[in-house]
Amino acid sequence: MSSTEGQVIRCKAAVSWEAGKPLVIEEVEVAPPQKMEVRLKILFTSLCHTDVYFWEAKGQTPLFPRIFGHEAGGIVESVGEGVTDLKPGDHVLPVFTGECKECRHCKSSESNMCDLLRINTDRGVMIEDGKTRFSKDGQPIYHFVGTSTFSEYTVVHVGCVAKINPEAPLDKVCVLSCGISTGLGATLNVAKPTKGSTVAVFGLGAVGLAAAEGARIAGASRIIGVDLNPSRFNEAKKFGVTDFVNPKDYDKPVQQVIAEMTDGGVDRSVECTGNVNAMISAFECVHDGWGVAVLVGVPNKDDAFKTHPMNFLNERTLKGTFFGNYKPRSDIPSVVEKYMNKELELEKFITHRVPFSEINKAFDYMMKGESLRCIIAMED
Amino acid sequence: MSSTEGQVIRCKAAVSWEAGKPLVIEEVEVAPPQKMEVRLKILFTSLCHTDVYFWEAKGQTPLFPRIFGHEAGGIVESVGEGVTDLKPGDHVLPVFTGECKECRHCKSSESNMCDLLRINTDRGVMIEDGKTRFSKDGQPIYHFVGTSTFSEYTVVHVGCVAKINPEAPLDKVCVLSCGISTGLGATLNVAKPTKGSTVAVFGLGAVGLAAAEGARIAGASRIIGVDLNPSRFNEAKKFGVTDFVNPKDYDKPVQQVIAEMTDGGVDRSVECTGNVNAMISAFECVHDGWGVAVLVGVPNKDDAFKTHPMNFLNERTLKGTFFGNYKPRSDIPSVVEKYMNKELELEKFITHRVPFSEINKAFDYMMKGESLRCIIAMED
Ligand SMILES: NC(=O)c1ccc[n+]([C@@H]2O[C@H](COP(=O)([O-])OP(=O)(O)OC[C@H]3O[C@@H](n4cnc5c(N)ncnc54)[C@H](O)[C@@H]3O)[C@@H](O)[C@H]2O)c1
Ligand SMILES: NC(=O)c1ccc[n+]([C@@H]2O[C@H](COP(=O)([O-])OP(=O)(O)OC[C@H]3O[C@@H](n4cnc5c(N)ncnc54)[C@H](O)[C@@H]3O)[C@@H](O)[C@H]2O)c1
Ligand SMILES: [Zn+2]
Ligand SMILES: [Zn+2]
Ligand SMILES: [Zn+2]
Ligand SMILES: [Zn+2]
Repeated sequence: MSSTEGQVIRCKAAVSWEAGKPLVIEEVEVAPPQKMEVRLKILFTSLCHTDVYFWEAKGQTPLFPRIFGHEAGGIVESVGEGVTDLKPGDHVLPVFTGECKECRHCKSSESNMCDLLRINTDRGVMIEDGKTRFSKDGQPIYHFVGTSTFSEYTVVHVGCVAKINPEAPLDKVCVLSCGISTGLGATLNVAKPTKGSTVAVFGLGAVGLAAAEGARIAGASRIIGVDLNPSRFNEAKKFGVTDFVNPKDYDKPVQQVIAEMTDGGVDRSVECTGNVNAMISAFECVHDGWGVAVLVGVPNKDDAFKTHPMNFLNERTLKGTFFGNYKPRSDIPSVVEKYMNKELELEKFITHRVPFSEINKAFDYMMKGESLRCIIAMED
Repeated sequence: MSSTEGQVIRCKAAVSWEAGKPLVIEEVEVAPPQKMEVRLKILFTSLCHTDVYFWEAKGQTPLFPRIFGHEAGGIVESVGEGVTDLKPGDHVLPVFTGECKECRHCKSSESNMCDLLRINTDRGVMIEDGKTRFSKDGQPIYHFVGTSTFSEYTVVHVGCVAKINPEAPLDKVCVLSCGISTGLGATLNVAKPTKGSTVAVFGLGAVGLAAAEGARIAGASRIIGVDLNPSRFNEAKKFGVTDFVNPKDYDKPVQQVIAEMTDGGVDRSVECTGNVNAMISAFECVHDGWGVAVLVGVPNKDDAFKTHPMNFLNERTLKGTFFGNYKPRSDIPSVVEKYMNKELELEKFITHRVPFSEINKAFDYMMKGESLRCIIAMED
C-alpha cells in the first residue's frame, strides 16, 4: 500500500489555461481514484498531433483549463473500488480509448470501439460522477480523452489502462499509447499484407511511418511512400520505405502512377493523411481482384468519399480502422512484447527528448514538423 | 468418340437478328472446337437479366446477329487441341467468365477475375482466332460472353466450363451458371455472416434471393429484405427473409430504419439492385465496429458512390464481388454438391419452364417481372 493511497496528491502538471497559449507547469491537486478508476504516476509522456489539435481548439468547443496528453507510460499508484485487474506498482500504458469487456463491441472479436469507453474528445470529466479529479485551489481542471498524461499523477478509468511487461522501458514503449499502434495495427491487423506483397502508405507522419513499419514486419517486398512533403522521404528510408511518390511531381492522378509502377496496383494501401483526396487515391490504387485499402486519417466534417462503384465490384475492399483495431487492454501488452523481442523498432520514432519543465518545446518541434515523437521525461 | 467429332454440326439455335426483336429459331452451323475449346450439347438453359439487357442493346454497341444465353447445363460433345481436363460425355456448366489457371488472378486465392477469360460483353468471337464458331449459310453469327447457350450446340473456351457431378439434374443446376451463384457467393464467400447474425439484402430479384439463401444457409437469425417493389415480399418468405422494408414506406433514409430495427445496424448487408442509392444505403446500414457490406449490382456508367469517410473509420468494411467470388472451374462443382446434399435449395428459384421453341416466352416472363428463373428445355 502506498502512503498516498486515498489521499489527494499535490503534484506538478502542465495546465493549458487557454487555447493556443503555452502550457504552464502548476502545482495541482489530484483526487483519489473512484469506482473503477486507477491513479497513475506518469514517468514518460509524448506529444501527438491530437493534443496540439485540441489545444489549438480551432473548430471544436474549447474546454479550458485542461490537462492534455494521451501517450504515456507509468506505474499504478493506487486503485479505486472494484478494480481487480490492476494493483499498485503495475507498469501500464494509459490509452485514449477503452475496453470495458462487457459491451457488444468488447465482446466482438472484430471491434475495439467500446460503447462505454470509446474516445470522447468533448468530455472533460470522469464518467463515474461527471466530475474532474484535477483541481487547482479548488478550481476544477478538465481531463482530456480520459488520460491527461501531462501531469505527474493522473486518474484514468481502469478500462483505459493496459498492463504491460514491467521490464519494458517506459521511455520507449510510451509511444505505443496512440499513433504508433494506430499505424502499426492498421497494417498488421486490418490491411494484413502477406509476405512479398506490395504496400502503399499515404502520409509519412508518425502514423504513416508506423504503418510502413508494419509492412516491413509483415515482409512486404515493396513499400511505396506517398507524401506531398518531400522532406518526409529521407526519414522514411529508415522505416523500410523503398519507393517514394510525390503526387505534385506528376500530371496524372497518383493512383495511376502507382498502378503503372506495380503492374495494375498495390496489394494493400494504408492512408494516414486525413485528406479525403488521399483516401480516394489510396482506395483506387489497389489492385483489382484482391486489393485492400485501409483508412486511418481523420477527415474533415464535410468531406465526402467518392468513387465509381465499379472500383468495388472489381473486387477491391475498403476498410477503416480506429486505433489500429487494437483492444487496449487485451492487445497492447503484446505490441510491447513485439518491441521487447526486437520485431518492432521504436527508437527510430523518437526524435527528441525534453524534461517536463520544457514541455512547450515539444509543441514547437511538432508544429515545425521537426519531430516524429518527442519524449517528455517527468523526472529529468 | 462421338460421330460428330471434328465435323460441323447443323442444329437449332435461337438467333437474335436485331436488338429487341423476338429471337428466331434457325438451323445454324456450329464449327468444331479449336485449340483449348470444347463443343457442348446444351440440354437446359435459363434466362438472366443480362441476356435481356444486351438483347435490348440500349446503350451498348449492338452486335448482331448474335446467340445469347449464359446459364446452362450440358454435356461435352467433343474437345479441341490441348484440352485434357474434359472429355466427351462429361456433364458441365458453361460460365460467362473463366479461369485459365495461369494468370495472377487465377493464382491468387482471393480473385476470380481471370485476366484471359474475364467476362467480355463486347467481344462476339472466340479468343483463339477472333472468329465465330456459329454461322448460317456462311454468315457469321456472334457469340455472347463466350457461352451462347441458346443453341443445341455451342463452343466454349475450356476455361469457362465447370465439370460437375454427372448425377446432378441439369434442369435444376443450370441456374448455377450465373445469377444464383453470384448472390449465394456474395453472402457465403464475401459477406460471410456468422451463425445468428443479422443480414440485410437490398433487391429481391433472383440474385438478392440467392444472397438471402446464402444467409439462411449460414444460419443468420434475421434476414431483412429491402425492395421498392412490394410484390417481391411474398416470394421472399420462401427464401428465409424474416423482415421486409420498403424504403417508400418511410420518410427517413432506409439505413436509419434498419439501424433502428437492429440496435445500430446489421452485421452484414448485400446489395443486389444495381442502384447506386441502394449501394450507399447498404453500406451505411451495417453496424460500426464489425459491419461488412457487399456490392453485387452492376451500376450505371456515371454513378458515384458517395459517403462520409467517418463511416469507414468507424470500422465498417465495403467490398464488391463478381460472380460471388467463385472461380468457375475450381469452385462451381462444390456449389452443385451443396444442392445435391440438400443444403442449397434451387427449386424455389425456378418459377417457369418452356420448350426451346417457346424461348421468347421466357423473355416475356422476365420483362413482366413474373419469373425468377425460367428453364428452357432444349429437347421438350
Ligand atoms: N484512426 C485513428 O485511430 C488515428 C489515431 C491517430 C492519428 N490518426 C490520424 O492519422 C493521420 C496521420 O497522423 P500523423 O500524426 O502521422 O499526421 P502528420 O500530419 O504528421 O502526417 C500526415 C502526412 O500526410 C501528408 N499528406 C497530407 N495530405 C496528403 C495528400 N493529399 N497526399 C499525400 N500526403 C499527404 C502530410 O504532408 C504529412 O506528412 C491524421 O489524420 C490523424 O488524425 C488516426
Ligand atoms: N456482380 C455479378 O457478378 C452479377 C451477376 C449477375 C447479376 N448481377 C447484378 O445483380 C443485380 C440484381 O440482379 P437481378 O437479376 O436479381 O435483378 P432484378 O431486377 O430481378 O432485381 C433487382 C431488384 O432490386 C430492386 N431495387 C431497385 N432499386 C432499388 C432500391 N433503390 N432499393 C431497393 N430495391 C431496389 C428492384 O425492385 C428489383 O426487385 C443487377 O444489377 C445485376 O446486373 C451482378
Ligand atoms: Zn466495451
Ligand atoms: Zn494521439
Ligand atoms: Zn486466369
Ligand atoms: Zn447472368
